[in-house]
Amino acid sequence: MARKTGRQFFANPGPTNIPDSILRAMDRPTIDFMDGEFAELFNTAVGGLKRVLRTTGDVFIYTASGHGSWEATLVNLFSPGDLVLVVETGWFSEGWAAMAAKFGLRTKTVAAPDWRRGVEYAAITAALKETPEAKGVLCVHNETATGMMLDLPSVRAAIDSAGSDALLLVDTISSLGSLEFRFDDWGIDAAVGGSQKGLMLPTGCSFTAVSAKAMKVHASSTMARHYFDWSEMTKRSFRAFMGTIPTGMFYGLAESVRLIELEGLDGVITRHHRLAEGVRRAVRTWSGNVGGPELFCLSPDRLSDSVTAIKFPEGFNSDAVRKTALEKFNVSTGGGLGKLGGQVMRIGHLGDLNEPMILGTLGAVEMSLKINGVPHGRGGVDAAMEYLAEAA
Amino acid sequence: MARKTGRQFFANPGPTNIPDSILRAMDRPTIDFMDGEFAELFNTAVGGLKRVLRTTGDVFIYTASGHGSWEATLVNLFSPGDLVLVVETGWFSEGWAAMAAKFGLRTKTVAAPDWRRGVEYAAITAALKETPEAKGVLCVHNETATGMMLDLPSVRAAIDSAGSDALLLVDTISSLGSLEFRFDDWGIDAAVGGSQKGLMLPTGCSFTAVSAKAMKVHASSTMARHYFDWSEMTKRSFRAFMGTIPTGMFYGLAESVRLIELEGLDGVITRHHRLAEGVRRAVRTWSGNVGGPELFCLSPDRLSDSVTAIKFPEGFNSDAVRKTALEKFNVSTGGGLGKLGGQVMRIGHLGDLNEPMILGTLGAVEMSLKINGVPHGRGGVDAAMEYLAEAA
Amino acid sequence: MARKTGRQFFANPGPTNIPDSILRAMDRPTIDFMDGEFAELFNTAVGGLKRVLRTTGDVFIYTASGHGSWEATLVNLFSPGDLVLVVETGWFSEGWAAMAAKFGLRTKTVAAPDWRRGVEYAAITAALKETPEAKGVLCVHNETATGMMLDLPSVRAAIDSAGSDALLLVDTISSLGSLEFRFDDWGIDAAVGGSQKGLMLPTGCSFTAVSAKAMKVHASSTMARHYFDWSEMTKRSFRAFMGTIPTGMFYGLAESVRLIELEGLDGVITRHHRLAEGVRRAVRTWSGNVGGPELFCLSPDRLSDSVTAIKFPEGFNSDAVRKTALEKFNVSTGGGLGKLGGQVMRIGHLGDLNEPMILGTLGAVEMSLKINGVPHGRGGVDAAMEYLAEAA
Amino acid sequence: MARKTGRQFFANPGPTNIPDSILRAMDRPTIDFMDGEFAELFNTAVGGLKRVLRTTGDVFIYTASGHGSWEATLVNLFSPGDLVLVVETGWFSEGWAAMAAKFGLRTKTVAAPDWRRGVEYAAITAALKETPEAKGVLCVHNETATGMMLDLPSVRAAIDSAGSDALLLVDTISSLGSLEFRFDDWGIDAAVGGSQKGLMLPTGCSFTAVSAKAMKVHASSTMARHYFDWSEMTKRSFRAFMGTIPTGMFYGLAESVRLIELEGLDGVITRHHRLAEGVRRAVRTWSGNVGGPELFCLSPDRLSDSVTAIKFPEGFNSDAVRKTALEKFNVSTGGGLGKLGGQVMRIGHLGDLNEPMILGTLGAVEMSLKINGVPHGRGGVDAAMEYLAEAA
Repeated sequence: MARKTGRQFFANPGPTNIPDSILRAMDRPTIDFMDGEFAELFNTAVGGLKRVLRTTGDVFIYTASGHGSWEATLVNLFSPGDLVLVVETGWFSEGWAAMAAKFGLRTKTVAAPDWRRGVEYAAITAALKETPEAKGVLCVHNETATGMMLDLPSVRAAIDSAGSDALLLVDTISSLGSLEFRFDDWGIDAAVGGSQKGLMLPTGCSFTAVSAKAMKVHASSTMARHYFDWSEMTKRSFRAFMGTIPTGMFYGLAESVRLIELEGLDGVITRHHRLAEGVRRAVRTWSGNVGGPELFCLSPDRLSDSVTAIKFPEGFNSDAVRKTALEKFNVSTGGGLGKLGGQVMRIGHLGDLNEPMILGTLGAVEMSLKINGVPHGRGGVDAAMEYLAEAA
Repeated sequence: MARKTGRQFFANPGPTNIPDSILRAMDRPTIDFMDGEFAELFNTAVGGLKRVLRTTGDVFIYTASGHGSWEATLVNLFSPGDLVLVVETGWFSEGWAAMAAKFGLRTKTVAAPDWRRGVEYAAITAALKETPEAKGVLCVHNETATGMMLDLPSVRAAIDSAGSDALLLVDTISSLGSLEFRFDDWGIDAAVGGSQKGLMLPTGCSFTAVSAKAMKVHASSTMARHYFDWSEMTKRSFRAFMGTIPTGMFYGLAESVRLIELEGLDGVITRHHRLAEGVRRAVRTWSGNVGGPELFCLSPDRLSDSVTAIKFPEGFNSDAVRKTALEKFNVSTGGGLGKLGGQVMRIGHLGDLNEPMILGTLGAVEMSLKINGVPHGRGGVDAAMEYLAEAA
Repeated sequence: MARKTGRQFFANPGPTNIPDSILRAMDRPTIDFMDGEFAELFNTAVGGLKRVLRTTGDVFIYTASGHGSWEATLVNLFSPGDLVLVVETGWFSEGWAAMAAKFGLRTKTVAAPDWRRGVEYAAITAALKETPEAKGVLCVHNETATGMMLDLPSVRAAIDSAGSDALLLVDTISSLGSLEFRFDDWGIDAAVGGSQKGLMLPTGCSFTAVSAKAMKVHASSTMARHYFDWSEMTKRSFRAFMGTIPTGMFYGLAESVRLIELEGLDGVITRHHRLAEGVRRAVRTWSGNVGGPELFCLSPDRLSDSVTAIKFPEGFNSDAVRKTALEKFNVSTGGGLGKLGGQVMRIGHLGDLNEPMILGTLGAVEMSLKINGVPHGRGGVDAAMEYLAEAA
Repeated sequence: MARKTGRQFFANPGPTNIPDSILRAMDRPTIDFMDGEFAELFNTAVGGLKRVLRTTGDVFIYTASGHGSWEATLVNLFSPGDLVLVVETGWFSEGWAAMAAKFGLRTKTVAAPDWRRGVEYAAITAALKETPEAKGVLCVHNETATGMMLDLPSVRAAIDSAGSDALLLVDTISSLGSLEFRFDDWGIDAAVGGSQKGLMLPTGCSFTAVSAKAMKVHASSTMARHYFDWSEMTKRSFRAFMGTIPTGMFYGLAESVRLIELEGLDGVITRHHRLAEGVRRAVRTWSGNVGGPELFCLSPDRLSDSVTAIKFPEGFNSDAVRKTALEKFNVSTGGGLGKLGGQVMRIGHLGDLNEPMILGTLGAVEMSLKINGVPHGRGGVDAAMEYLAEAA
């Protein structure tokens, strides 16, 4: 295989770039996880994770990818036949709903007219009033497939104003450590997260933060489970039921938290917003008045700061452009998921990033548009630079 | 915390020492796993894993620890109410049986009079004749808790001579890549394995090899499942349902297979036997005729070549000796699990090991026996050296 | 110190970006360098280095930086009082001449009217005719301080047409592995190189390739020397007099050669030209007709493909812009050396690079020009993209 | 090449085992060494090095191996024709004397009757009285070739009692960071050290600590020099004349000092003594009364705590035993240097070591003695364990 020189610009919305200091922290020999040194590290790492989640409650950790954490959260909180409300935002919310159905839950969906628009919060209230027996509301904070966010305090308010007792379950996989998220303050009941996005770790661990209210509900759940069983985990010293612990991941997590807190969690969030806006300036320039690629999201208050989905004009395949970017310029972007395949390119801008990394990515995409003959307004990178120079 | 100098001698029976070249292979930036480079690597790595398993059949891989693979294997092959026969060999076989019960399976156990003796293979035949409805036989090839092996061809024969159709499920977690194991030749139906033992990788991946017969049975299983669902996985390009793929693990696996095949799988097995025998010579010398620590296993044909369990004399706590070895000499050994706590020390000798590593471990243990006033015959290390010099 | 996020864009003309696979190859435990494994590696690595040098002759390697290699080459080839001709190209040629003087050599310089213009090759011939006793001609293939190259075949021809026997000594530190260089074909007598530029290794090793003619001259050199003595080295098995061998460097070198040959040496050279031209397009756009920063080099046939020196307009300090690029955008560029301090910015574009890395660097520089109020034509990055998209 | 499993036990007296945390600290991308972050690191690292040297004076650092530091120290302190007194202790003191001669120094040697005995300190006084014009005394603190130490305060006293002004130059390459060494308190004038021994770093840097008195003498030295010139270095911001700085080495050095100070410099010295004594107990047992291998050093007050040289009985080749240890057991030991070739095996026990590493090494050597039929008293490892258990 021919050599691609230089660093791959990894602008997929996840996994994300892993800082060298995290990779090195994880590159270490096997140690005895029953030794005091590991216990200290574990507590440091998990304590840090809670600060990033902004919770003082329980967090259960799994040797699993994000899908495992989804499943864990469902099987610990519900019983077969329970009804859950799903806030449809795209491919990932669909997936979670499908999983719930597999475990015998009944699902009801609230959705916008199409994926390019955000669900009205009032629709959540309305749906809950219709089905007061709903036990949970499932939503995705940041839908990686469409580059759209939910305002979680608004979701919370929507549930409250329906007078519902339903638990609020949130997938924070592509928002945690990138966008503002406050587990305790916002009244979240269960937050699903993974290692490989804003925490800048390799894939391999996922987790659920759980509210006191949710822990009470858990006690009466009758779902069969073992690998993901929170009750089993609370009996264990490391409060994580994984059999053998992936110790390296916790060395990585401790370093991740150190990096995040060195920059400051607020600083991290501000930087993500700044870089995201740079990307959006470029995309808007490409749209121009020539029918070029445009922002997929049509609800301005839902634009994601961790991933931007770009809708391609009819007749042009986003995957062809992605292929050029990857093969000619060593820049990896995300494609359209599910029914958006070929229509959408997604640029991830979360994790360990800076301005020149964004500009390099945008430059490669702009060159690939040109090479593929996709109509577009010129000067996207210029527009991003204009904004980023000012914002610096 | 005070600095422990030098390398920790990691003689726990798992996880095991990770060779530097595997750590380095895994220490790499995030790459696009949809890129052709990763697909090539994935196929190389999984192809190698199959050669180590000695199978040409299906292997399903999970982002999970070994417990996840146990669960995956149960939920894909059985339906609630099914009866499975459990061959009791120690703490891990107990654990698997308990898990089966959680998922609504009925379990029946065949056991030896106590854990220090091996189950008679004829007892398996007898039990299956009594319960011809049994759908599976669960057994642990190498019971890490007691340092005892099963002869799997004898188990296969025992099932066959009962005229039973039950699937043979085997936990190979602490045997694969260390002891002889032949999936296809021995008529295994499902083999559960993990990354962190004989494959010399970090904890984080586990897998099940599945026979054609088992795949047929899978089709009629009614257990609720998603994260571990083989049917879902077969639809995916990487034939592993994990959401985001832990790419680093496959770089590690490819290197692991390279190392194993450089030595030769037979060479690996021979070396494990040689080093294990060295350890046993030392233990037998410690036993002496002074009532010193002795081999836990009383059935000579069941002695494990990957882990040796050592029973301590009454009145002496194995954990005190382990603590000395760890704190004074930076040597980590395993303790007694479950009801064997405090009575047993386990020396793992699997994975990336050589003679001086074994001698250093035995030396630290012998010094720790002395420091703790545990009666023992002197010259254990000498006896190991005597044997290992000759065997070299 | 505040955290700079993302990767530092290292666009200094040296050292250069080290590919991850080289870093990992070097990250390994100490091994016995008298063992056969190392001997094999050493030969592989040095064999590869010779192919990169395009020589079949002798190469002597030092644990030293490039300055050590300069010194080694002088003390092995000359005797106190010898006259050497120095082709002045900038700060580095000056440095080498000053070093020669310290060791008692007499130096004579040929220069262009100023550093922005290339020396006429005919001037070399003329100078040698005036001083037929000259024993050597010292020149720098690629002057890192000014971003200007020499055409070495023209230098060789200039020496020959003077009928001179002088040895041709060339500093290839910032050209080898980036620009075309042919030791044997071009009649070079001694080539000085270092690990940390086109070979993409850390600083720490340097070397001299030596022609048969030069080896003969070496035999009569009377300079005191030991650490760098080629005669001592030829007695040693590893033909490199360094006392203890820095083994890691050879693991790195073997990987470096593997990467270079995977791309192909010609491919490496072509890529350097392409990326360099992209940088020049940007600089020419910045110059515009507004008196912006401009290419330092005024002789078009001397433009370097591994480093571009940019002259700032009067009244604007290049170091202020460099500071902005480093502190706000984590992009490191080179400053003016010696008398060019504050007047020049140097962008290194050698080693392990690709298009988006170049665009990210140019983008950060363009934003920094803007932030510092340096007059410049807009659209430098655009111009680079225009070219690079076409050249891709 | 067949795979050697497990870690290589590196018991050569140098280079030494590099702790993983040092390797990882060095495994990092190129950074801008003119950036403030590096300056801070450099100062931290060099400050720590001075504490290890126990000096508050000047330290000059070279990108060079130990031989470079020897040369640097000579060419900065003397002028052609100067007389230096050499305290002969073995192969390395011979080498340094030979180097001095190459640079035009006159050398005079004081020696014991043979290398197995230590030089009388009174002989140094006597020699200096005979040659009051001597400008320097060259000695090797710990002669790696013979495993013998000098008591430096006694050397200092010997010089003082001769009323000599000669500078005291000491090679601390295999003692610094392992044996007690106090530059300021002991009145040393120049101490030569390297990265790859007690500092546990890769080969690649060496240095000289210099007293105020020596700096004055330096001012009048007329030796030609450049790469190693202290006067040039004092002009530079990093006070180290190396051209490009090997930045990775300073990340490693900072980590090395951190590890040393975590254990405590006194703790490091005590541990080296303890492990060395364990090795000596083994060797004395091998000697037995059967004419087995014995301690090379016959002067008990000169036994080195960082390396043990073992003399083999007539008719038995030490290299054959070393070959067995390396090939069969992956243990690397040192051979006899110069005229001791084939007669001596050297076990290095300096740097990052612990008890099981020593026992594993001794075990491999004892097995190799047996395999090669070398007569020896059995139970060497046992004797080491007896001592180490008590000393723990």
